[in-house]
Amino acid sequence: MESTILSPLLDRVRTVRPLVHHITNTVTINDCANITLAVGASPVMAEAPEEVAEMVSMADALVLNIGTLSAQQVGSMFLAGEAANDRDCPIILDPVGAGATRFRTSTVMQLLDRLEIAVLKGNAGEIGTLAGADAAVRGVDSGGIEGDPGEICRELAERLGVIVGMSGPVDYVSDGTRVVSVENGTPMMDRVSGTGCMLSSVVGAFAAVSDDRFLSTVAAMAVFGLAGERAAPRAKGPGSFRFKLIDALATMEPSDIIGGARILSL
Amino acid sequence: MESTILSPLLDRVRTVRPLVHHITNTVTINDCANITLAVGASPVMAEAPEEVAEMVSMADALVLNIGTLSAQQVGSMFLAGEAANDRDCPIILDPVGAGATRFRTSTVMQLLDRLEIAVLKGNAGEIGTLAGADAAVRGVDSGGIEGDPGEICRELAERLGVIVGMSGPVDYVSDGTRVVSVENGTPMMDRVSGTGCMLSSVVGAFAAVSDDRFLSTVAAMAVFGLAGERAAPRAKGPGSFRFKLIDALATMEPSDIIGGARILSL
Amino acid sequence: MESTILSPLLDRVRTVRPLVHHITNTVTINDCANITLAVGASPVMAEAPEEVAEMVSMADALVLNIGTLSAQQVGSMFLAGEAANDRDCPIILDPVGAGATRFRTSTVMQLLDRLEIAVLKGNAGEIGTLAGADAAVRGVDSGGIEGDPGEICRELAERLGVIVGMSGPVDYVSDGTRVVSVENGTPMMDRVSGTGCMLSSVVGAFAAVSDDRFLSTVAAMAVFGLAGERAAPRAKGPGSFRFKLIDALATMEPSDIIGGARILSL
Repeated sequence: MESTILSPLLDRVRTVRPLVHHITNTVTINDCANITLAVGASPVMAEAPEEVAEMVSMADALVLNIGTLSAQQVGSMFLAGEAANDRDCPIILDPVGAGATRFRTSTVMQLLDRLEIAVLKGNAGEIGTLAGADAAVRGVDSGGIEGDPGEICRELAERLGVIVGMSGPVDYVSDGTRVVSVENGTPMMDRVSGTGCMLSSVVGAFAAVSDDRFLSTVAAMAVFGLAGERAAPRAKGPGSFRFKLIDALATMEPSDIIGGARILSL
Repeated sequence: MESTILSPLLDRVRTVRPLVHHITNTVTINDCANITLAVGASPVMAEAPEEVAEMVSMADALVLNIGTLSAQQVGSMFLAGEAANDRDCPIILDPVGAGATRFRTSTVMQLLDRLEIAVLKGNAGEIGTLAGADAAVRGVDSGGIEGDPGEICRELAERLGVIVGMSGPVDYVSDGTRVVSVENGTPMMDRVSGTGCMLSSVVGAFAAVSDDRFLSTVAAMAVFGLAGERAAPRAKGPGSFRFKLIDALATMEPSDIIGGARILSL
Repeated sequence: MESTILSPLLDRVRTVRPLVHHITNTVTINDCANITLAVGASPVMAEAPEEVAEMVSMADALVLNIGTLSAQQVGSMFLAGEAANDRDCPIILDPVGAGATRFRTSTVMQLLDRLEIAVLKGNAGEIGTLAGADAAVRGVDSGGIEGDPGEICRELAERLGVIVGMSGPVDYVSDGTRVVSVENGTPMMDRVSGTGCMLSSVVGAFAAVSDDRFLSTVAAMAVFGLAGERAAPRAKGPGSFRFKLIDALATMEPSDIIGGARILSL
């Protein structure tokens, strides 16, 4: 896949400035808002049952992240998700910690069952758990998985009828037929809380401006990884990496992208 | 209006170190705490009905921000607001997203109706919505408003009997009779989530040390804008702007202020 | 006490990578996650009653922080605490704002009464309040306390059967018999929201890798203070201090520690 897909989609996010509605965790909610602004979109966070469907009616993408899940939040996710489905607003689901507790795993299963999810984006442990692979999850950290990660994504995508994105040292994206790997990124990503959540926000911004959610997810993962690659050499630790990642994404130019993306069709 | 008002009020915040109680959103709550410290005041966040009134009994200002409103939080806002009114502790209301959903708009109306609000501080879309002007709100972003912004603030301030502050490329403040514009600031403010919320915290800190809430609001808006002007040229993007804004406010000296404020009586 | 204790314990945190489960406030929850990663441990935040005990079953330490307490959160703290006690997972209690409201003070009393707490870590006002000393608390800020701080810690530690850590310009730690002071740190710590909360996360990470919770608490307080000492001269204000503190802890080497710790047996 050519990296020439990336720059037009990023331009389109910046021109359209899609509204990305989040129902997300309290740990990284601020990072999600700021990375959404950095990529060129507009964030909104709302989850009160009194308003959540009305707010979704303006949104161009909906990101559901279960990082600090509560029963009340599950209810709001369904209200928001149904409103999103009614108007073909794409839903991105980040199953943070699926596999760590039954509450998280079963909530993700229900969301996948009752809503039409456009993109399921998780780490290896989370995607592996949902795929029924032999996967390790500890808290919200991914352990390893047994098996071919690209094939695990493909089978899960085919079974669920969604785009599956698996983040890690190498990212994988599948629509159930095609599988690509994205080798952009930096080990610093794992040393900052919330880079996975931020990636889901970027996936949401890209999904909002393209009907091809396989392509938009690949583009989002490559662009976010490239921002990390630009930020890492300039950082003196995870504290400075975090703000430099936001700076790098906000100031990314077409010339930074061309030739930088490492996307392989598998 | 002379910029000579600014430095004494900032000094007074730093000397008195007022306690600014916040009931605010989960997105930018940390930024509100840190900007309150940066201006020289002390933040406290509490909203449990079991303690909120008791905590307000120590506070010098109360900031109510509806950015991630819940029904439970509305209840706490009334408990806190009534306790604040009982002891003449000034209340600053930030109607984040008013106009975007009926829940937000009607909650703001009720807060304005049942509590004595000292300062209503919002963006053009929010203030315009409350003023009944033709205003656009999308998520928590302001669209434009039709009409003269200074006059919209003046009429709303007169009708409600509050100080109205409208933030934007140019800020406006009115007490229902006087109107001033404050031209300090930087476009970078819009590229970081929570600068509006942070401004409300600063407005709260200044309101705590002055009985003239028109003057204190003008001063707060000018000082915050000046901090942004100092931070912006040194920032390489919104990530670095955010921490440099806090640094700039925390290290602001009288010499940075004199001649810098651009306050015009309209 | 020799500073030679510090480096091996820090190494051990980085090797074991303990899972530190937090139930904490919404103001500084992100800082707690990032400082936990910076010291070399893994953070998880979860408090839904549906999952909190199951998540604790994987944890190596549990940090309870009452900074934005709610009745619902108290329930989750007991569920988590009982699960932790059942498997000898150490509990760190940060009584943020104890003394400011009856709700906070009485909740802390109940947690201390019904759970086996390993380390109670607070500021002078909070520890003084719990010790029955003449202590001042204003919001979540500590005022002064009357009396000998080391002796106040010792008596409280003896009475409660816990390790008591009191943070401040000089830190004190006692197990009810021994008392040490730790003079590492910087006044910048007070100018950033959440440094006390971050310290509790670090105390949790160290408690997870040592059965001697007196020693591990002393080590955590010295290492965190040393990180602050390294960060402060490079910071241009509290905004930059905050990320440099995280960088400093993440990149701390044995050579930074040796000779740097100022730990005195009293």
